[in-house]
Amino acid sequence: MIIMKTDATDEDIRRVVAEIERSGLRADVSRGDYMTVIGPVGDERKLPFDRLATFPGVKEATMVETPYKLISREYARFFGEPGAHKTVNIGHVHMGNGEPVIIAGPCAVESRPQLMRIAEEVKKAGAHVLRGGVFKPRSSVHAFQGLGAASVEGAEEALNWLKEAGNAFDMPVVTEVRGESMVELVAKYVDIMHIGARNMYDQDLLVAVARQHKPVLLKRHFGASIEELLSFSEYIAAEGNKDIILCERGIVPMGKGKSYTRYTLDLAAVPVIHNETYLPVIVDPSHGTGRRDLIFDMSCAAIAAGADGLMIESHYNPSEALVDGPQMVTPDELKDIIDACRRVHKMVRKPRA
Amino acid sequence: MIIMKTDATDEDIRRVVAEIERSGLRADVSRGDYMTVIGPVGDERKLPFDRLATFPGVKEATMVETPYKLISREYARFFGEPGAHKTVNIGHVHMGNGEPVIIAGPCAVESRPQLMRIAEEVKKAGAHVLRGGVFKPRSSVHAFQGLGAASVEGAEEALNWLKEAGNAFDMPVVTEVRGESMVELVAKYVDIMHIGARNMYDQDLLVAVARQHKPVLLKRHFGASIEELLSFSEYIAAEGNKDIILCERGIVPMGKGKSYTRYTLDLAAVPVIHNETYLPVIVDPSHGTGRRDLIFDMSCAAIAAGADGLMIESHYNPSEALVDGPQMVTPDELKDIIDACRRVHKMVRKPRA
Amino acid sequence: MIIMKTDATDEDIRRVVAEIERSGLRADVSRGDYMTVIGPVGDERKLPFDRLATFPGVKEATMVETPYKLISREYARFFGEPGAHKTVNIGHVHMGNGEPVIIAGPCAVESRPQLMRIAEEVKKAGAHVLRGGVFKPRSSVHAFQGLGAASVEGAEEALNWLKEAGNAFDMPVVTEVRGESMVELVAKYVDIMHIGARNMYDQDLLVAVARQHKPVLLKRHFGASIEELLSFSEYIAAEGNKDIILCERGIVPMGKGKSYTRYTLDLAAVPVIHNETYLPVIVDPSHGTGRRDLIFDMSCAAIAAGADGLMIESHYNPSEALVDGPQMVTPDELKDIIDACRRVHKMVRKPRA
Amino acid sequence: MIIMKTDATDEDIRRVVAEIERSGLRADVSRGDYMTVIGPVGDERKLPFDRLATFPGVKEATMVETPYKLISREYARFFGEPGAHKTVNIGHVHMGNGEPVIIAGPCAVESRPQLMRIAEEVKKAGAHVLRGGVFKPRSSVHAFQGLGAASVEGAEEALNWLKEAGNAFDMPVVTEVRGESMVELVAKYVDIMHIGARNMYDQDLLVAVARQHKPVLLKRHFGASIEELLSFSEYIAAEGNKDIILCERGIVPMGKGKSYTRYTLDLAAVPVIHNETYLPVIVDPSHGTGRRDLIFDMSCAAIAAGADGLMIESHYNPSEALVDGPQMVTPDELKDIIDACRRVHKMVRKPRA
Repeated sequence: MIIMKTDATDEDIRRVVAEIERSGLRADVSRGDYMTVIGPVGDERKLPFDRLATFPGVKEATMVETPYKLISREYARFFGEPGAHKTVNIGHVHMGNGEPVIIAGPCAVESRPQLMRIAEEVKKAGAHVLRGGVFKPRSSVHAFQGLGAASVEGAEEALNWLKEAGNAFDMPVVTEVRGESMVELVAKYVDIMHIGARNMYDQDLLVAVARQHKPVLLKRHFGASIEELLSFSEYIAAEGNKDIILCERGIVPMGKGKSYTRYTLDLAAVPVIHNETYLPVIVDPSHGTGRRDLIFDMSCAAIAAGADGLMIESHYNPSEALVDGPQMVTPDELKDIIDACRRVHKMVRKPRA
Repeated sequence: MIIMKTDATDEDIRRVVAEIERSGLRADVSRGDYMTVIGPVGDERKLPFDRLATFPGVKEATMVETPYKLISREYARFFGEPGAHKTVNIGHVHMGNGEPVIIAGPCAVESRPQLMRIAEEVKKAGAHVLRGGVFKPRSSVHAFQGLGAASVEGAEEALNWLKEAGNAFDMPVVTEVRGESMVELVAKYVDIMHIGARNMYDQDLLVAVARQHKPVLLKRHFGASIEELLSFSEYIAAEGNKDIILCERGIVPMGKGKSYTRYTLDLAAVPVIHNETYLPVIVDPSHGTGRRDLIFDMSCAAIAAGADGLMIESHYNPSEALVDGPQMVTPDELKDIIDACRRVHKMVRKPRA
Repeated sequence: MIIMKTDATDEDIRRVVAEIERSGLRADVSRGDYMTVIGPVGDERKLPFDRLATFPGVKEATMVETPYKLISREYARFFGEPGAHKTVNIGHVHMGNGEPVIIAGPCAVESRPQLMRIAEEVKKAGAHVLRGGVFKPRSSVHAFQGLGAASVEGAEEALNWLKEAGNAFDMPVVTEVRGESMVELVAKYVDIMHIGARNMYDQDLLVAVARQHKPVLLKRHFGASIEELLSFSEYIAAEGNKDIILCERGIVPMGKGKSYTRYTLDLAAVPVIHNETYLPVIVDPSHGTGRRDLIFDMSCAAIAAGADGLMIESHYNPSEALVDGPQMVTPDELKDIIDACRRVHKMVRKPRA
Repeated sequence: MIIMKTDATDEDIRRVVAEIERSGLRADVSRGDYMTVIGPVGDERKLPFDRLATFPGVKEATMVETPYKLISREYARFFGEPGAHKTVNIGHVHMGNGEPVIIAGPCAVESRPQLMRIAEEVKKAGAHVLRGGVFKPRSSVHAFQGLGAASVEGAEEALNWLKEAGNAFDMPVVTEVRGESMVELVAKYVDIMHIGARNMYDQDLLVAVARQHKPVLLKRHFGASIEELLSFSEYIAAEGNKDIILCERGIVPMGKGKSYTRYTLDLAAVPVIHNETYLPVIVDPSHGTGRRDLIFDMSCAAIAAGADGLMIESHYNPSEALVDGPQMVTPDELKDIIDACRRVHKMVRKPRA
């Protein structure tokens, strides 16, 4: 990490970047209000830190040997982010350190009328962002893969409905992207690019998505440690895209016998990630529990733990949904959840370090 | 499960019990306000349910093939527990379906002055029950095992301090019991018998403790599923002791790399257990995270998830504690936590089914 | 699954395929010596099995509701694979149901001389197939990503060395492919396309690789169940490519405290997979243990458990390797391992069901 | 760890022990052929190592801060165990570093004729030690708990049959002990005291069993790391009982979906434990897989991995067994397994470091 003096010139910065690239690394340049920080991407052991420290305009040059540094609180602190906490702006919606942001909508986009109706109802219930799956990653090749899987035309049509529904009810939209070849197409239609849990380890997809320079929502794989989630989100940051929203959505249950939930929701991940990074973190209680009757309790708990938002699957008629029926709430239930979460948020709100 | 008619006589009940015992099983008799339910303990496949259904005073006789039935909501429903939710009474403290009950105190009892001072301070902070370890189960034979481990006299002295401190500050007391030979001694001094996570699988200890007919606090093993926790708590209920408090205290983290917490706190266990049983369930965020700086967030989250109480390790000077220093909060911090939890509890309170 | 009569005509088959496609599914046609089996790819609940059963040339039409059926033993049995066990042919190397096949070489290709020397030495030690990583999937963006990561030219050069070394010492070659955009390039140079553990869940990569119609080596993710490995390998089979080699390489260790191995090698996966599918399965003790001193024991154990082969990282000087030094064996050690494995294989060989 | 000079006197040793006890620790004295080693039990930080080093007869006094040291290879090395590898003698059976020792018999003792018949048949098949459960630890209070659970008389009768059967067919016998109050009774009848996986964490039971001064067979809990197994076996060694046999019997499977085995058998535990300790280690493929059809493969694999023995459940009619029918092999199958294991053992035998 190279911290530049407040009066460092563009030329000073260029010289440092050039030196880093000469050593075979890339350079991430973050310009804050008061100073600029340059984060080398790659094996820092190859860098001549002693020499770099003597470059004009350089205040400090130190090696950081963690798998994530560009997303770390330390990194943000230097370029003056207040409280080292980032707000990700998605149109008129601001995620991070304020009111909880609610992302809601159906698991899968099934038809234009289904989507328009749900969009209207979740908006009324208090949701801020509309979700809807066009490409569904599935464990079985024989399961429904989303309307987008059949053809590019099908994908484009469904993505267009999503955009329309978002416009109609004044909500930014998010959908999951799967497959590098679909990245550019999806980026044309959505406000947040969502990378699903199954694809968290797919570094090539992460890089391709990051390059669209749109906010990225990255979910923790159900078998991943928090360190792995952070290390893989660094792949996005290393492309110069720091508009990253992390999402806890449950890990595989442990032990013999029944767990009664589809996954184990690791809510301590919320304060832990806030402690390690400046990025906002949200919780998905729908996948995290797999049970409609637990969404209320776990949503309140997530907000109490400090989550910056929630992602909740909602459908006017869960039992007729093509995917994930048992974990979807109705718009009425969603309203109760959002109301309770707002009350809880007010009760626990406290200034972050 | 045999449900007796409201006008069944004692003789009717005795006859059913005798028949169950003739088949080599034991019988758990629960007398409610309106009716009596008899739960067979053992392999129900050996019971002549068809014949039992014809006994005088028997309303219904059906086989229940789950590993836990005496603690299930179904069982309670029949004998008229309102809302199938049990309140465990510990002196003047009532746990279950009301204000959250806070159990606090040091990890280990170290001396009389240490304990008296902490008791006074946690009481002021708002705690209801005093904890203090006399026997510490440890993974290493070379680690400090608690004052009780050295000798029976040492154990008795420390237990006496605990009782004294409880009396002085008007709090019931709880300590962990370890080793069947210590069960009776501990029962003489404490109000709640605590079985630690490492001993959850020790069915013989569970039975010995249950027979003291005092409230039992059973912690989930860090490698156990929820079903296992419930199945082992059934060993206590099968001794006729239903004053059981279940405790979620974190499971082993998963995945490669760092998790940043000592355990993964599984907060969905709270609503799941409430759904399966009529027993109260509390959360131990101290062991569940292992990090003092996460206790506030995870306590609020636990209460938001519906926990009936919390068990929090507290010490006036965490850094000088013999065990678990990094996860203890000061009494001042404890006060903040308790205050926030009360506010959260009011916000999410809702009638339970 | 639609089983055709032995005298079914091409026209009969075309008619069945057309009907399947009309329902929105794809059809996998497997022609055996005696009969043809057609496996629908997609949601079989949409298929009119009753009607299909009446089509000319159809012997039997039944729904199979498992996430993998094209790779199942049942599927193979019908078209007459002897013992329902498949041999994957890689040039003159035949994997499955015979002598164990040894894949060896460096973790990462570092230079032409390094690769040529290792190729010569592992060949002498008894290896059959040469491995060498050109693209390394890594948990950290800051770690060495393989020679192929820097540029397409770098990738092509390293791939060419691999091909050369294979030719020079008469071994087919295998390398890991990462990123959909690299699939075609890699396919031009290697004999086996290897999909690494981190990418097992990347169904789009699996499909892209399958379409190259070369043998595919699919490794189990370190957080995946066996069912998941089989379900994802079905994505490859559904593209008509059944030349799939499955590889057990260890899962994340469980429990508190040290495990002493990098992963837990799940050797029972070998007979389990042989029981479920007709595909060959190999073991990677290098990643599975992460410890050079355990490779001998675990290689012998893998062969004793019935593995069809081994993938072992080898380097003439492990301590100077860029990646995975602690788990690489020298060619001399490799020879001892191969010799012992051959002896063990003779001792346990028995006809498979 | 205090290493005494070869010519240290009993008085020298007594003086060191007294000093250790004065500091509140206990002392484990191991007399080898050439020298004596004294291992302090407890927190070594309290010991005055500098002063101890100056005591007469003391060669070296150093602090060892691992959770297990009395069972470590380092400890054995000093008192001259050849190869730092211990042989546990059970009557005429010698376990450790030689021919694999086979422990076989029914899961549960059901009757005298059942046991006598199985004893005769497993002896013929080549078994060396007879097993048979009298007390069965069970996850459900409603499941069959073994003949010993009903009454002390029942326990004594079943234990007596076991002893009789062992005598009749010249095999030492082993049974699981559960509950501290049963320890002395069981010790009267058996040659090896077996502590089951569920009780591995029960340090009080471990201590009570160790004090019987009979060989102890300790199974790894299905949620425990190898370090935990070793740390808890140190509780036995700290009582002066080093006749400990460790047993790998499978850990809880990971990942979503089916694993196809009851547990994941961690065979790398075998060489790892051999590397860390001087104790013999065996494998239980019956519980480790839960599937009769996998016992052959996994037994061969265990021996190939270096196991000193196997524990295999066997019954002449698995389908009528009261417990664990699906994982028991017939005596004929057992014979095939033992024969194959002997052949494998000869193939991989190599001198241990």
